[in-house]
Amino acid sequence: MIKAGIIGATGYAGGELVRLLLGHKEVEIVWYGSKSYVNQRYADVYRNMFQIVDEKCLDDNMEELAQQADVIFTATPQGYCASLINEAILSKTKVVDLSADFRIKDVSVYEKWYGIEHKSPQYIEEAVYGLCEINREDVKRARLVANPGCYTTCSILTAYPLVKQGLIDTDTLIIDAKSGTSGAGRGAKVPNLFCEVNENIKAYGVATHRHTPEIEEQLGYAAGKEIVLNFTPHLVPMNRGILVTAYAKLKKDAQGRLPSCEEIKAVYDRYYGSERFVRVLDQGVCPETKWVEGSNYTDIGFVIDERTERIIMMGALDNLVKGAAGQAVQNMNLMFGLEESEGLAVAPMFP
Amino acid sequence: MIKAGIIGATGYAGGELVRLLLGHKEVEIVWYGSKSYVNQRYADVYRNMFQIVDEKCLDDNMEELAQQADVIFTATPQGYCASLINEAILSKTKVVDLSADFRIKDVSVYEKWYGIEHKSPQYIEEAVYGLCEINREDVKRARLVANPGCYTTCSILTAYPLVKQGLIDTDTLIIDAKSGTSGAGRGAKVPNLFCEVNENIKAYGVATHRHTPEIEEQLGYAAGKEIVLNFTPHLVPMNRGILVTAYAKLKKDAQGRLPSCEEIKAVYDRYYGSERFVRVLDQGVCPETKWVEGSNYTDIGFVIDERTERIIMMGALDNLVKGAAGQAVQNMNLMFGLEESEGLAVAPMFP
Amino acid sequence: MIKAGIIGATGYAGGELVRLLLGHKEVEIVWYGSKSYVNQRYADVYRNMFQIVDEKCLDDNMEELAQQADVIFTATPQGYCASLINEAILSKTKVVDLSADFRIKDVSVYEKWYGIEHKSPQYIEEAVYGLCEINREDVKRARLVANPGCYTTCSILTAYPLVKQGLIDTDTLIIDAKSGTSGAGRGAKVPNLFCEVNENIKAYGVATHRHTPEIEEQLGYAAGKEIVLNFTPHLVPMNRGILVTAYAKLKKDAQGRLPSCEEIKAVYDRYYGSERFVRVLDQGVCPETKWVEGSNYTDIGFVIDERTERIIMMGALDNLVKGAAGQAVQNMNLMFGLEESEGLAVAPMFP
Amino acid sequence: MIKAGIIGATGYAGGELVRLLLGHKEVEIVWYGSKSYVNQRYADVYRNMFQIVDEKCLDDNMEELAQQADVIFTATPQGYCASLINEAILSKTKVVDLSADFRIKDVSVYEKWYGIEHKSPQYIEEAVYGLCEINREDVKRARLVANPGCYTTCSILTAYPLVKQGLIDTDTLIIDAKSGTSGAGRGAKVPNLFCEVNENIKAYGVATHRHTPEIEEQLGYAAGKEIVLNFTPHLVPMNRGILVTAYAKLKKDAQGRLPSCEEIKAVYDRYYGSERFVRVLDQGVCPETKWVEGSNYTDIGFVIDERTERIIMMGALDNLVKGAAGQAVQNMNLMFGLEESEGLAVAPMFP
Repeated sequence: MIKAGIIGATGYAGGELVRLLLGHKEVEIVWYGSKSYVNQRYADVYRNMFQIVDEKCLDDNMEELAQQADVIFTATPQGYCASLINEAILSKTKVVDLSADFRIKDVSVYEKWYGIEHKSPQYIEEAVYGLCEINREDVKRARLVANPGCYTTCSILTAYPLVKQGLIDTDTLIIDAKSGTSGAGRGAKVPNLFCEVNENIKAYGVATHRHTPEIEEQLGYAAGKEIVLNFTPHLVPMNRGILVTAYAKLKKDAQGRLPSCEEIKAVYDRYYGSERFVRVLDQGVCPETKWVEGSNYTDIGFVIDERTERIIMMGALDNLVKGAAGQAVQNMNLMFGLEESEGLAVAPMFP
Repeated sequence: MIKAGIIGATGYAGGELVRLLLGHKEVEIVWYGSKSYVNQRYADVYRNMFQIVDEKCLDDNMEELAQQADVIFTATPQGYCASLINEAILSKTKVVDLSADFRIKDVSVYEKWYGIEHKSPQYIEEAVYGLCEINREDVKRARLVANPGCYTTCSILTAYPLVKQGLIDTDTLIIDAKSGTSGAGRGAKVPNLFCEVNENIKAYGVATHRHTPEIEEQLGYAAGKEIVLNFTPHLVPMNRGILVTAYAKLKKDAQGRLPSCEEIKAVYDRYYGSERFVRVLDQGVCPETKWVEGSNYTDIGFVIDERTERIIMMGALDNLVKGAAGQAVQNMNLMFGLEESEGLAVAPMFP
Repeated sequence: MIKAGIIGATGYAGGELVRLLLGHKEVEIVWYGSKSYVNQRYADVYRNMFQIVDEKCLDDNMEELAQQADVIFTATPQGYCASLINEAILSKTKVVDLSADFRIKDVSVYEKWYGIEHKSPQYIEEAVYGLCEINREDVKRARLVANPGCYTTCSILTAYPLVKQGLIDTDTLIIDAKSGTSGAGRGAKVPNLFCEVNENIKAYGVATHRHTPEIEEQLGYAAGKEIVLNFTPHLVPMNRGILVTAYAKLKKDAQGRLPSCEEIKAVYDRYYGSERFVRVLDQGVCPETKWVEGSNYTDIGFVIDERTERIIMMGALDNLVKGAAGQAVQNMNLMFGLEESEGLAVAPMFP
Repeated sequence: MIKAGIIGATGYAGGELVRLLLGHKEVEIVWYGSKSYVNQRYADVYRNMFQIVDEKCLDDNMEELAQQADVIFTATPQGYCASLINEAILSKTKVVDLSADFRIKDVSVYEKWYGIEHKSPQYIEEAVYGLCEINREDVKRARLVANPGCYTTCSILTAYPLVKQGLIDTDTLIIDAKSGTSGAGRGAKVPNLFCEVNENIKAYGVATHRHTPEIEEQLGYAAGKEIVLNFTPHLVPMNRGILVTAYAKLKKDAQGRLPSCEEIKAVYDRYYGSERFVRVLDQGVCPETKWVEGSNYTDIGFVIDERTERIIMMGALDNLVKGAAGQAVQNMNLMFGLEESEGLAVAPMFP
């Protein structure tokens, strides 16, 4: 049994990690870390876990945790993991960081968008960006994985094959994203109260959201050149789910012809046809967040608009699963040589 | 592998049955029955099952199905199962009926409340009322199980120990129940449209809801006498979940003393302490539907009001799981000698 | 023009008061009081009021406010109004207190249920309980009105005629109430976050909710004797609305006969037939919160269950309107000799 | 008093028209038309109107209605109004058509996108496109007004000033829109059931939605040239509200300089500064649908992204008010020489 420790186990992503790891037959959770609820029973914080989890919440102590755990998940605010990580820890245990600390290779970009100093830039190079479908082999060898953001995972997976194949003009790429409210975390803030979110939709972080440079960097690798794009997140009155609607001009071939639906579909299938957790929908089918709820799937669809010569790419995932905890487990599975889908092979829940 | 067939696989309860059976390691679904979607791919009806279920929907043919399946689940309208069942079928296969056809022992009560003639009353006596926590041994030996209703399961489990122990005055028992909208089914009706249900709560079927006689009959067995009670269902703007709030006068002992919280708690613990799927909450904790969502648990709590000498008993479950498909699987597990929790041992999902 | 001042204008009830008074042709708001947002533009707190309200929020200063305003509304936490009120203020201005400070005549009951000392018990006797349909004439002469609670208004109006007429056994009265989340206020607390409330229902304050003694006192006046009852509030995932489902045994006449539906309906009609804001629904129609949203109406319906000899009385209102701000305006209209429905004559909004 | 008749009074837009006209002091509704509910009491269909509207629903009879009414509102399916309108009717009464029949000047475009033959193309030229803020003077003189679509009103108002001033490159214009579910109407369809919409978001009608040519035509007039753009609607789990997020490249001036925020704000203010129902938000404030709920306002905000040289324009309105019934009343007010805001001067409702 792999011994797993979680720092930040009482946030929504941490809670989802607990739920998923409890259903994982090769893992035992040895540490329910939560600075805010030290010494309280975990099941008193998340009552869904009554009679399932008996442990109490423990204070953060990464040194001690490294002794006890084979893998540490940090589901903590930005800057926290970077401030604690060191060689002693990494020599004893593997780390999957669900924060942004090791996602961006250029430390100045990180510091600019996040507004904080990076406390252990020496590990940025080593850290593997844990988008399994793209970096699978590197994840297998990693001791430090930077688990991608929720919006990021959805945005990248949706656009990646067409960017990589050079089928779209990346200068025209616009990503309009919609997220359920669990993405805003469990902090007690007026804008996240039920009555403020319910019966409402709004954009936020327009042109300034921190997932922007992460998407740009990863799609830039695929394109082989720098990408600058628009990313606009919206808050939707639902608990879970991210939907990405991405727009870009299709490139024409030498004869001035746009690619056909069949050609685009074939490209998606080539990239994802053998992927367990990415489902390329039938032509004309648009993804819906409800169809992936509770699961590790990302559903992808697209429509070509001949009139504007643009393609509308759409992707949907559960922000707490493939967008956070599920992907973290998928990464862990790869790092430990387990079946990639172990603990994640559940069908989405509907309705 | 147990071969399972589902009639009514495209209703919400049928869909949940598919989800649960797919995660059951001893079962294979051999028949996705749906009169309304014959020959359509199941995954085109429920897109969460895309790339998970490849089968098409089949028309109803219980004779043929009895040849192929070891167990048939009927998630069909009232009267349907009773109109099809016969000795030939029951001699070849086991049946778990999710409709009300075999729940009520007195056929005249059934016919009065449901307003239809019962087509196979000869099997009512044999049928076992599949509330596993109460009729476990009988279920093990059954070939025909009447799977309890959603409101019913929640109401009975909540009140049963105190009724059985004679601690409450059953003449004063009032059950006020609240349900998510999936209980209303997937039929296209104006009152179930999003805009009609959202931002709204109402009572319905007041004094006439069909789950009333079922609750009365089962609690009557526990009390050893006839029970007549009030049951009022309400429609709540959420997908899943039933909450029952039940009121009754506590009986006093010979010294005119009310039972204490500790005494009541001890009774609940005695009945449910070793039950996997009934959780008696700590004193003072009220159940919430969210804490059981997606799982087979029923959570139970209570408060004693010394001022009125009443006890307020509360129970919560997921109407599609413990209230329908999960209980059906639990019954199947018992009927086939499997571990009772097989396929059901998942933690509730939050948020 | 009547000059109105609001203390607590940035809570949900205060915000609703602003909305209603802006539509009132005899009133001008001269004071937007909010301790938490002093000096901030009101429309920056509630952006629905952008370009409608230009004023800034003012700190609490009841002495000063009494100079400027003809009427003061206090939409403040319990204890606050009682700590500020005095003869100087009441000699200059009228006060409608939306808190509980002057609702309960027995100060020891107030202090026990609210757990605070009452700072001006000398005004309790004078204060008029502002349930207009019952105390209309007293309200007209009042200088201090205790505006009823939201659950209370709905519960009392629903049961009042039958209690007053002695048609039900008040010892058996049980009130099961369901409320939208705006009733919980705008404070930033984890249990009121969107993800905690959405897709969830729970009871809370069971046997201890502070509206209990208020309901008991008022219905006690109607019955002419002390009433002790059960009141159980529930939190529903919607913004607005309260639904009350109340149960009681019907009394039989000398011939052992239960009252008929027609007789009960006639009683309700007698009490409310000429009331603008109480609608007695047609027989068999159950009230729904959605049908009164945004309006000052209370809808009332009932069902008689011959089997149990109980009546199920149901009432619905908008907790922020008839349950708070609307009733406060109705009281103000009476106090100033205006048309009772002035500023309140709007149809409910659907959907 | 202006006598108003409504055809299609029991759809959501028709119901909203009733609500608004009841609050209009110069109008009396003389005809509640509803083919589906002929002879049923209107208040039995929409119970919010109990004791407010006593009339029964009438069958469609436009000839007769033209005799009785000074203005007819048609809130009916596409093609219906065009099939009934004629000179006799228009000579007796004014018509505000809430369907798409007279919105598009090029009949072949209409017939292609709507897939139906236009039955009275002779009135297309005469009909005035009733976007009051743009065509106010023409509306005043009209006898037939084509009331704009909900998505359309929001999209056009949001982009209009910048298109008209030539500040954006219209070839790059992309409109990503999100709508509450009342926009889907009150028809009983599975995709609009509560459980299908709740906790879900999806795009639909991608590249094919019928509001596309309407937006293109109107913005084309502003630009003085043909515009082809992408328009993608999404279904959001809320009752009311449309949010538009529009993207376009800003044009640079001769010095290669982008316009500043102040310059853009000044343009919006110039166009809308004196408009009662369009609110240009302060810089950096993003519109939210909740802040306009129940009102006739459209809120507009924007962000300039220097990195991509794009502007993100955002607009929010209530699809049933400014997006349908409110705008219809605004048009009627203009047509009859009334105060433009009569019956519409209510503050938005929050929460």
